Amino acid sequence: MPASLRVNASRLQHHLDQLARIGALTTGGVCRLAFSEADRQGRDYIEARMRSLGLAVRIDRIGNILGTRRGTRSGPLVLTGSHVDTVGTAGRFDGSLGVIGALEVVETLNDAAVSTDHPVGVIAFANEEGARFMPDMMGSLVFRGDLQVGDARSRVDRDGVSVGEAIDRTGYAGTDDFTDVGVHAYLELHIEQGPILENANMTIGVVEAVQGLTWITFTLTGATAHAGATPIDMRRDAGYVAAAIVQYARTLSHEIESQRATVGLLSLSPNIVNVVAEHARLTVDLRNPDADRLAMAEERLHRFVAGAAAAERVTVSHTTDVRVPPVRFDPVVAGHVQDAATALGCRSMRMVSGAGHDAQILAAKFPAAMIFVPSRGGISHNVMEFTSTADLEAGANVLLHAALRLAG
Amino acid sequence: MPASLRVNASRLQHHLDQLARIGALTTGGVCRLAFSEADRQGRDYIEARMRSLGLAVRIDRIGNILGTRRGTRSGPLVLTGSHVDTVGTAGRFDGSLGVIGALEVVETLNDAAVSTDHPVGVIAFANEEGARFMPDMMGSLVFRGDLQVGDARSRVDRDGVSVGEAIDRTGYAGTDDFTDVGVHAYLELHIEQGPILENANMTIGVVEAVQGLTWITFTLTGATAHAGATPIDMRRDAGYVAAAIVQYARTLSHEIESQRATVGLLSLSPNIVNVVAEHARLTVDLRNPDADRLAMAEERLHRFVAGAAAAERVTVSHTTDVRVPPVRFDPVVAGHVQDAATALGCRSMRMVSGAGHDAQILAAKFPAAMIFVPSRGGISHNVMEFTSTADLEAGANVLLHAALRLAG
Repeated sequence: MPASLRVNASRLQHHLDQLARIGALTTGGVCRLAFSEADRQGRDYIEARMRSLGLAVRIDRIGNILGTRRGTRSGPLVLTGSHVDTVGTAGRFDGSLGVIGALEVVETLNDAAVSTDHPVGVIAFANEEGARFMPDMMGSLVFRGDLQVGDARSRVDRDGVSVGEAIDRTGYAGTDDFTDVGVHAYLELHIEQGPILENANMTIGVVEAVQGLTWITFTLTGATAHAGATPIDMRRDAGYVAAAIVQYARTLSHEIESQRATVGLLSLSPNIVNVVAEHARLTVDLRNPDADRLAMAEERLHRFVAGAAAAERVTVSHTTDVRVPPVRFDPVVAGHVQDAATALGCRSMRMVSGAGHDAQILAAKFPAAMIFVPSRGGISHNVMEFTSTADLEAGANVLLHAALRLAG
Repeated sequence: MPASLRVNASRLQHHLDQLARIGALTTGGVCRLAFSEADRQGRDYIEARMRSLGLAVRIDRIGNILGTRRGTRSGPLVLTGSHVDTVGTAGRFDGSLGVIGALEVVETLNDAAVSTDHPVGVIAFANEEGARFMPDMMGSLVFRGDLQVGDARSRVDRDGVSVGEAIDRTGYAGTDDFTDVGVHAYLELHIEQGPILENANMTIGVVEAVQGLTWITFTLTGATAHAGATPIDMRRDAGYVAAAIVQYARTLSHEIESQRATVGLLSLSPNIVNVVAEHARLTVDLRNPDADRLAMAEERLHRFVAGAAAAERVTVSHTTDVRVPPVRFDPVVAGHVQDAATALGCRSMRMVSGAGHDAQILAAKFPAAMIFVPSRGGISHNVMEFTSTADLEAGANVLLHAALRLAG
């Protein structure tokens, strides 16, 4: 019977819709910033669902919620989930799909009275987005044991409110910790947040890896000068060098295999129409699934910036804000995802995740992989985020069958 | 005797210092925004100086102040002056030098009891900077008769205060108009506001022309996209196109003779590190002393922007915010400036003004020219603006002798 088992698409869609009412924006999306009142209500919804499905619920001190469905054997969990916190103007699918999808899998198993050897765990990690409190993926870092709860609680938002204060105010966190929880394998269903599946007309992405990421902020200092009165060769134009860096990022993307380089954040100062910019500040976002190539991109970028700045007699300083190494998922777990997709007749492709996810944190300690479904227009972190019910259903069915293969 | 006549350098410096106390900033510069209380006090200082020098003072309805020293014949004035309003964080020399210098010339003539055929007029134009109320050079536009006082009075600042309200509040403007005032020639002494004289080790710039100016604001619209999840060739990156335009501005400066092209004002939206920019907005400042070459630069810029935007599937709209044609000063008046500089033994060079000045407004109706003295480091519109007393003195002596040659 398990091979013919399917999730209930309308029930899956219904619970996604219900969750999207919590923190709903009038523009159609949601705002459930980590540890806010809306986030607490979102997690209450998940906890209530877990209890109604008969799961044993535990909440740890950072607010991760774990619901466990008993297996025929005790032992490590086949764990699946994601997060329900969001960025400030978010869509309805990022994170939510992985948690609601996992609960739909459990309900499907319950309805069909399927028992598994391994227990199945559903988890909602706290503060994946990092939109309010850094670091992002805070809950999974605590889960993995690489971030202490005390350290996490001390992090503050822009208004000086700490994680600890915010958690205590919403009264949400538990007293538990999950150090005793064993994980046989971790699976995460997520929207792609990019246009690759849609453009390739695929339904399922079998995610084998997550790109490494480096963020470098350059601060360039030249000299203000009158745009009319100053000959070009006497200028020290910080804006000109910044623009050259933006252009070079594109060059890097073409020169190095699988490289992505983006400048989304750039500002000039004094930013006046007829004044040559004294200061420019920009952050380059570098991504590559290969650690050596990512390091090469970083090195070439620094060499280019030094040369461009020197030619314009502009000084440079930089900070490396984030450096996350690439992650390769477990081939056995990814193989189960692939097999499930193939058995279900889904159009699928192997791919690399461009965005960061809780799964990459868990992958350092446990066998893990991810399942992607298409994002219309590649749009994410935006109220326009959209995935069709059919694609949501396909993703949840692949999650169901990959989990069944892993749980035995 | 007139050939040996010299201004009093310490008196010139003293009056510049006194004027700089009005609206003084703690950082060393001044703030006398047009029609503010500080501007009124500055102009009161000038009016009092004019009266103490025995000049006949008239004030018109926009606040231009004219002080006239009688000639042996009645008839058109040899007029000289500038303005005493400033930008928000200004230096002590821009504008002020032209007015204080003109008063020093009059005091020198008085002390030596020199009489001239033509009467000599000293003028302080209202609102040259346009930092609070547009258009800039408002006072000289009214003087020339190309801007009606009623129109000028209706212009509002960012807080919705009109020129008329501001003038009436400070109680400064007169009831006069200057339609009966004839001008034989107009001379303006000014700091260069650029680095050319300093770099060439020159003391006097004989200004023969003012560059034409065009400001074009481009608004680029692409699409937001996740910096990690979106392949480069699927992007519509407005920031990338903006950077290409900044780079092309430099190319234009090299390709077209005497061309200056600057981007000092640029912003991205949403301006987030890991989000491809949906919108970019930037203004290109184009200058050329030749109208045909300026038009060519504009045309090439538009062609480049259209191509770069199309290649990235980014849409473009633009506004032409300002278009001021180049001005060629009167060769006879400029010749007198050159002759005076040469006779005084000053190191001088012919040059083009990069910045705009009241003189260019008057030049459309009256013979006019300008005298530049060096700006240290080319710095202007900045509290660090500086010109040495020796250079100020040289400039005032050239003004004195050019005026004497013109006044007969």
